[in-house]
Amino acid sequence: MARKFGIFLTIFCILLTSCHADWNILNEQRTSSGLKISLKNFCESWRMNVELHNIRNYQAVPQECIAYIGKYMTSTQYQVDSERTISECILHLTTNCILEKDGKDSWIFDIDDTLLSSVPYYKKNGFGGNKPNETALEDWMSQGKGTALKHSLKLFNHLKELGVQIFLVSSRKEHLRSATVDNLVHVGFYGWKELILRSQEDECKNVQKFKAEARNKIISKGYRIVGIIGDQWSSIVGLPSAKRSFKLPNPMYYIA
Amino acid sequence: MARKFGIFLTIFCILLTSCHADWNILNEQRTSSGLKISLKNFCESWRMNVELHNIRNYQAVPQECIAYIGKYMTSTQYQVDSERTISECILHLTTNCILEKDGKDSWIFDIDDTLLSSVPYYKKNGFGGNKPNETALEDWMSQGKGTALKHSLKLFNHLKELGVQIFLVSSRKEHLRSATVDNLVHVGFYGWKELILRSQEDECKNVQKFKAEARNKIISKGYRIVGIIGDQWSSIVGLPSAKRSFKLPNPMYYIA
Repeated sequence: MARKFGIFLTIFCILLTSCHADWNILNEQRTSSGLKISLKNFCESWRMNVELHNIRNYQAVPQECIAYIGKYMTSTQYQVDSERTISECILHLTTNCILEKDGKDSWIFDIDDTLLSSVPYYKKNGFGGNKPNETALEDWMSQGKGTALKHSLKLFNHLKELGVQIFLVSSRKEHLRSATVDNLVHVGFYGWKELILRSQEDECKNVQKFKAEARNKIISKGYRIVGIIGDQWSSIVGLPSAKRSFKLPNPMYYIA
Repeated sequence: MARKFGIFLTIFCILLTSCHADWNILNEQRTSSGLKISLKNFCESWRMNVELHNIRNYQAVPQECIAYIGKYMTSTQYQVDSERTISECILHLTTNCILEKDGKDSWIFDIDDTLLSSVPYYKKNGFGGNKPNETALEDWMSQGKGTALKHSLKLFNHLKELGVQIFLVSSRKEHLRSATVDNLVHVGFYGWKELILRSQEDECKNVQKFKAEARNKIISKGYRIVGIIGDQWSSIVGLPSAKRSFKLPNPMYYIA
């Protein structure tokens, strides 16, 4: 009996050691300078550098970070990060003299992952780990199943109460207009001034240029842009700029 | 005996429960929307929104996040995050036709927490949790004890090898020039083209304006700015801009 137990214990120890070794292989690597890091370290530094706009034009989330990004996008942390961004917008609106209250104060929202979450889509499509499939994504958009980012809805309603004119500027194409309107209204977003989508002539421009031109048009109508919020740097950078810009976190994809 | 043990067990359970309750008080809170979060969630969202440039002009790290920020600034994660930023700079330099190799390619570095780490100073001064004490900080700078950010040194030397002219643009004041030069050279940074510090006439400008003007001067001398790297947004934003800008993480302080 004691011998059987001894054999069992030996096998158990061997299995335990080999599992531990596998775990190390999976979870430990070195950076180019030889720094010993875990997979979490690697993916976290990837995500941080995406948000810092140091990493650009990526086609997909690195394969080894899909699980990490999926975990983040469905975590409390993502919720808290987004809520804090919105709180800073609301704080900005309390700045002395920021609003002139003459009907010409305006605010620009991006749509995807700013008002409407596409996490339900990416959940089924590898959390940004696959190269973008425009057909599949537009098909999903046309179903109008985007959920509201609830903190953004709070800001949206707050702006309406303040009498700030709301412009929605999105790289979604014109043929998605009615599905987009239905989706927005269905989850609580209504009362905007204008919804600017990409027409056929805009399709050859990159999104950053399209959005800068949209801001130009808004300004040329006499509006002052008090703020912009988007999940992509291309919604924010370039001229003309707003009084302040706010970037929501979103490591799932990059739009130039 | 059994009774004594019973009493002991009861006391032990009470202590355990109360400790657990304290832990909850310390580590659990709710956001304005009622989301139940830990202190780590809160501090991480603060840090993320600082790096996203959503939180600006803060005077000090929130008191409750000092330990969290201290842990981050001395962690492997901070090293990995910074190393990744540098890797992206080096990748940018491989872009086709980015360098014209006519002696007019240039790169701008900020100094503090870009080339020289001030973590040794902040370690002794509450990791950004105290309001900035300019006298104490300048006193520390004059001692020339800043350590090299080793990944930045790698980029610095790489640029020298490529024949890119290096400009150092820092908000340190002129009276710190010789201490700064000594410190830089001592830890391995030498061979720059120009070291631009704040003169008395620059002191009334904010740092962002001072740095934009410095870029203007560099360009007016015929240089093309291939890249900028800094740990503050004020080193990067505004016109004229570089071909690419890179932001190193640094939540310890904010310079406008």
